[in-house]
Amino acid sequence: MNFGDYFTKNIYANRGMTLEEDINLTNDYYNSLNIALVYKKPTPIKVVQVEYPKNKIKEAYFNEPSTLDYNGIYKGKYIEFDAKETTSKTSFPLSNIHKHQMKHIERVLYFGGVSFLIVRFVPLNLTYFLLGEDIITFEEKYHRKSIPLDFFKKYGFLIDLKYSPRLDYIKILDIVLKRGVKKNEIEEEKEKD
Amino acid sequence: MNFGDYFTKNIYANRGMTLEEDINLTNDYYNSLNIALVYKKPTPIKVVQVEYPKNKIKEAYFNEPSTLDYNGIYKGKYIEFDAKETTSKTSFPLSNIHKHQMKHIERVLYFGGVSFLIVRFVPLNLTYFLLGEDIITFEEKYHRKSIPLDFFKKYGFLIDLKYSPRLDYIKILDIVLKRGVKKNEIEEEKEKD
Repeated sequence: MNFGDYFTKNIYANRGMTLEEDINLTNDYYNSLNIALVYKKPTPIKVVQVEYPKNKIKEAYFNEPSTLDYNGIYKGKYIEFDAKETTSKTSFPLSNIHKHQMKHIERVLYFGGVSFLIVRFVPLNLTYFLLGEDIITFEEKYHRKSIPLDFFKKYGFLIDLKYSPRLDYIKILDIVLKRGVKKNEIEEEKEKD
Repeated sequence: MNFGDYFTKNIYANRGMTLEEDINLTNDYYNSLNIALVYKKPTPIKVVQVEYPKNKIKEAYFNEPSTLDYNGIYKGKYIEFDAKETTSKTSFPLSNIHKHQMKHIERVLYFGGVSFLIVRFVPLNLTYFLLGEDIITFEEKYHRKSIPLDFFKKYGFLIDLKYSPRLDYIKILDIVLKRGVKKNEIEEEKEKD
């Protein structure tokens, strides 16, 4: 091993990957092993000016997304989710989810699809899976600006970070699909209190 | 009615809409009446240079799509399709479908999704719905560079152009989902010959 290798190896070992990189690797894994077909949608861009015949875009702007970043199929079911990182150690700010996206989660559920968030608390190195149903219920019930970590611990599912697949969220999905969605879990819990 | 109105009305009556406009209107209709949730995916764009802090994209290029343009949910099912216009009166050139897209149709079917094309023969003003299964089978059996109109007549479904919804492709989908997919229809037909 030369110094170059050593250096490179340590950079990769230490820096860690972003949540998006982890999910993209996981999706490649699922795709190549015929487990699920999930894609990241292209970023919506408003094109203003194009130079022909080169087809070079000379002026364009990023649009705010109104849907979630990833969608695809698992066992014939429509799934759609988003991946969000937060630097907080205690809660996930709901400002990370645009209003249109929240509405979209509701729509996906209405139409019988599966929707969820994958949220990483970066300083804690913890990644949670939280169902769309639970996010909607949380918002309706509590009217708070952020979802506390405790809520993720109670209603979400911790996803272990592994070598391959990096973030096995389909394993969680299997549990969710098997148990059925307990939409009223939070209400039940509140009644007990 | 003033001349302005008259002029506008006639432009719209005569020019006809593009297939994409018809489908976008149809999707809005489905969405607003809670029939189906279908979106056009953003065009994939490779961003090269961005001017900060304005977030203005100064150099970017269109990428070739590797999936189909529209996807969504109908009755919990994953659907994905593309819309193509041809100026031919006799056949639909397969060069309109990129290799990656053809592969993608196969993948969607493998995972239990529904995939199809909506093809408009512009000079004939005829719009057909053709299942992904039939496109794949056609390609494998005939190794031809275009799908003849007769094939659409036999295995596809004509979609009437109406005022609202413009192109009721969900009606076709209902028939398809009810009858089940006859993957071997073409083979059966050939054996009879």
